[in-house]
Amino acid sequence: MAYLFVHEDREYLLEPGERFESDLGILEVPEDVAPGDVVETHLGTGFTVRALRGPDLFTHLKRTGAPMMPRDVGLVLGKTGISGGDRVLDAGTGTGILAAYMGRAGAEVVTYERDADFAAVARENMAVAGVADTVEIRTGDVTDDLDDLAGFDALTLDTEDAPTVVERAPTLLARGGSLAVYSPFVENTRETVAAAREVGLDGIETLDTIQREMDFDDRGSRPSTGGVGHTGYLTVARRP
Amino acid sequence: MAYLFVHEDREYLLEPGERFESDLGILEVPEDVAPGDVVETHLGTGFTVRALRGPDLFTHLKRTGAPMMPRDVGLVLGKTGISGGDRVLDAGTGTGILAAYMGRAGAEVVTYERDADFAAVARENMAVAGVADTVEIRTGDVTDDLDDLAGFDALTLDTEDAPTVVERAPTLLARGGSLAVYSPFVENTRETVAAAREVGLDGIETLDTIQREMDFDDRGSRPSTGGVGHTGYLTVARRP
Amino acid sequence: MAYLFVHEDREYLLEPGERFESDLGILEVPEDVAPGDVVETHLGTGFTVRALRGPDLFTHLKRTGAPMMPRDVGLVLGKTGISGGDRVLDAGTGTGILAAYMGRAGAEVVTYERDADFAAVARENMAVAGVADTVEIRTGDVTDDLDDLAGFDALTLDTEDAPTVVERAPTLLARGGSLAVYSPFVENTRETVAAAREVGLDGIETLDTIQREMDFDDRGSRPSTGGVGHTGYLTVARRP
Amino acid sequence: MAYLFVHEDREYLLEPGERFESDLGILEVPEDVAPGDVVETHLGTGFTVRALRGPDLFTHLKRTGAPMMPRDVGLVLGKTGISGGDRVLDAGTGTGILAAYMGRAGAEVVTYERDADFAAVARENMAVAGVADTVEIRTGDVTDDLDDLAGFDALTLDTEDAPTVVERAPTLLARGGSLAVYSPFVENTRETVAAAREVGLDGIETLDTIQREMDFDDRGSRPSTGGVGHTGYLTVARRP
Repeated sequence: MAYLFVHEDREYLLEPGERFESDLGILEVPEDVAPGDVVETHLGTGFTVRALRGPDLFTHLKRTGAPMMPRDVGLVLGKTGISGGDRVLDAGTGTGILAAYMGRAGAEVVTYERDADFAAVARENMAVAGVADTVEIRTGDVTDDLDDLAGFDALTLDTEDAPTVVERAPTLLARGGSLAVYSPFVENTRETVAAAREVGLDGIETLDTIQREMDFDDRGSRPSTGGVGHTGYLTVARRP
Repeated sequence: MAYLFVHEDREYLLEPGERFESDLGILEVPEDVAPGDVVETHLGTGFTVRALRGPDLFTHLKRTGAPMMPRDVGLVLGKTGISGGDRVLDAGTGTGILAAYMGRAGAEVVTYERDADFAAVARENMAVAGVADTVEIRTGDVTDDLDDLAGFDALTLDTEDAPTVVERAPTLLARGGSLAVYSPFVENTRETVAAAREVGLDGIETLDTIQREMDFDDRGSRPSTGGVGHTGYLTVARRP
Repeated sequence: MAYLFVHEDREYLLEPGERFESDLGILEVPEDVAPGDVVETHLGTGFTVRALRGPDLFTHLKRTGAPMMPRDVGLVLGKTGISGGDRVLDAGTGTGILAAYMGRAGAEVVTYERDADFAAVARENMAVAGVADTVEIRTGDVTDDLDDLAGFDALTLDTEDAPTVVERAPTLLARGGSLAVYSPFVENTRETVAAAREVGLDGIETLDTIQREMDFDDRGSRPSTGGVGHTGYLTVARRP
Repeated sequence: MAYLFVHEDREYLLEPGERFESDLGILEVPEDVAPGDVVETHLGTGFTVRALRGPDLFTHLKRTGAPMMPRDVGLVLGKTGISGGDRVLDAGTGTGILAAYMGRAGAEVVTYERDADFAAVARENMAVAGVADTVEIRTGDVTDDLDDLAGFDALTLDTEDAPTVVERAPTLLARGGSLAVYSPFVENTRETVAAAREVGLDGIETLDTIQREMDFDDRGSRPSTGGVGHTGYLTVARRP
């Protein structure tokens, strides 16, 4: 399990037994290193050891595309309530940020990624995030396995063919289970909503989220002049 | 532990041993009831038993004011990454939605509520949410106990005196731990940011979130004409 | 020409020669009444005479549907720069708010309204707005007259068949002239954009405007909790 | 009076009698040039002559800071209804975009700019915009002249000391006249609102406008991922 080694503004992700060189000297990571330890380089610079936390995942996971942003990951968690003991079916793993967050919240996650290289990176990422045991990454297309999947507490999709999967929500989900579909485009979102209506899901809702940073300086307080753009629409629904 | 008893559009929150009467007949909840059971009234109407999920908390917890909305609860979770094993200090419990979500994500939460009646309701709510063991609700003002509190993985505040608490973030938080402060007002948010800067927190950021629903009907797709208003600013930061 | 007669919170739109009764007495409007005059009822209550200004149009024109809102009228004016001496082709007159604003800014406007009753009301509204001479309201469908229309400085559309009209923009508009199309729906807007691209317009841009009121009270400053919903997308472009 | 000389993607602002050289040859602008003419360079490349329109002002006026954006200029026009025959008092001329728009809509504008160099540029800009006769730019601080100014149909302010001017709105404005104050900051806006309330203005409203572009491509329709940031709050009110 990897840890963060922090010295002032520097932050390195290293594993027990790893040897790391920088201008601050050579850092030999002890096999039994633990959060809270301070490890010194051969030049005497101390690095504090820290476990990765959720926000660190956005900085330290290997990216295989634009990962879902914290606000969208949070919106999925807030609207679905995925938590301890839940079984989640996820598709479109990508970097795996959402899967890692759900795993860290106590869910058992099965996630599908069609690209074998992306899936391999995502598996490494789950190890870094400490959820290798609870997040299973399957290489392949979830639509090929729909007959064998059933009774999940939540279904989270970030794939173009989400509408096809949503049509199967009544068997994929347990009663009361939640669906969350993330899509950048209106048309795809509309098809997802149509599929959710077709199969009789409840509480279907599509959210468009706009977020701005606030600036506070000596002249006053105001929303930032730097804009924050669109990420994606989130459609949620529940099996009645 | 209470469960939801669902029949078509009806949904009742009942405890084992409880006796419930409606026009559909008398429902005697068995002591050993479990999710998935179907329990019949004396008139023969079947109710399916279901565990509460996150989104049910917004419907079934007793409210002692406007509870935090799913998008804001989610934003706190997304930005702080609160998850299994984390120790969280929360203040301004209110209805307890945020505390319940954090507890369900595996965190141990200590939360302060100044109003004794609100605190009592929140304790009942934690029982309903299944987190009575991991969320401790203290009646009182967190500012009175700051000297005795330390080393939390996250600090979540929804109180007017948040700036006073933020000044103590360097001892309240473990290294890398996150702060999340929710406030409806610009002025209070500005003071929170000033306090966070004063004590040297990292990654200070205030988010203003605007959310609209999308409407999809035969005429086309568009954002809803019904507006969604402001809830609060969320300020996040981390202890370096 | 009608004027506003104002007494404290009351405001009536009356014409020279008109006789008006209320609990404050009978008001006989002199034929030669002028802004700034004070006219008394037979009971001695004075009403100050005032010309209608732009914002009064939203209150005092007769509505034949939801009129365009000030922010959208303004956006059309800001993005197209319609002003003194411009010739404007408008379609989908409705209440006529946009036509009145453009007329008051000095433009000569030809506007099409398919519904004869709506057109009649709009003509009355133009008289009230003081632009009966510069805004010509034609009852009918603009698409029937496209062969006879040419060389306008601006083309403003609030109709479902806007894409059909946009296809003719190269002859309808003078060089450098602007197109502004207002539509609530994504699909219709997309077709408008496709038509504008097809005929080679420049600077094609679709704007989605979200507007919130700010609340300032003793507790602080914040965006209103009452939401403001979507009105329409505005697509602008220019003939090169 | 300057005109635009357009050849394909090129667009130059030139005056009658001016001599202009580029790689396309030398262009001698005739003294009697008029919109619609085609003028050739000595190498035979034709430039079409075009009068400036509103949107051209954002491209061709000389900037002395960030000019007000079209959406904000439009919002001022939409909310105040400034139009033909109105007398407007404006302060914080800057580049003069708003003053030019108001002049082009038929208003007589007196505008104050404290910086003499900025005022000189703004005067040139008014000539380019064709409103040198109707927009008077005074070098100085409007607060020095408040005793001598009265009875305007509208008061438009983009200055830090707007609250001081707003306190005088009851004499500066005619009955029914509108105030529009543009400010980037919450605190300044709050003071403006307080001043407007203090002197009894009606319909006080502060608007926060968020605007996004929509993208339409082969993959679908969506709000742009490129963000549009905050410009300023607009506060409007009317003298009762």
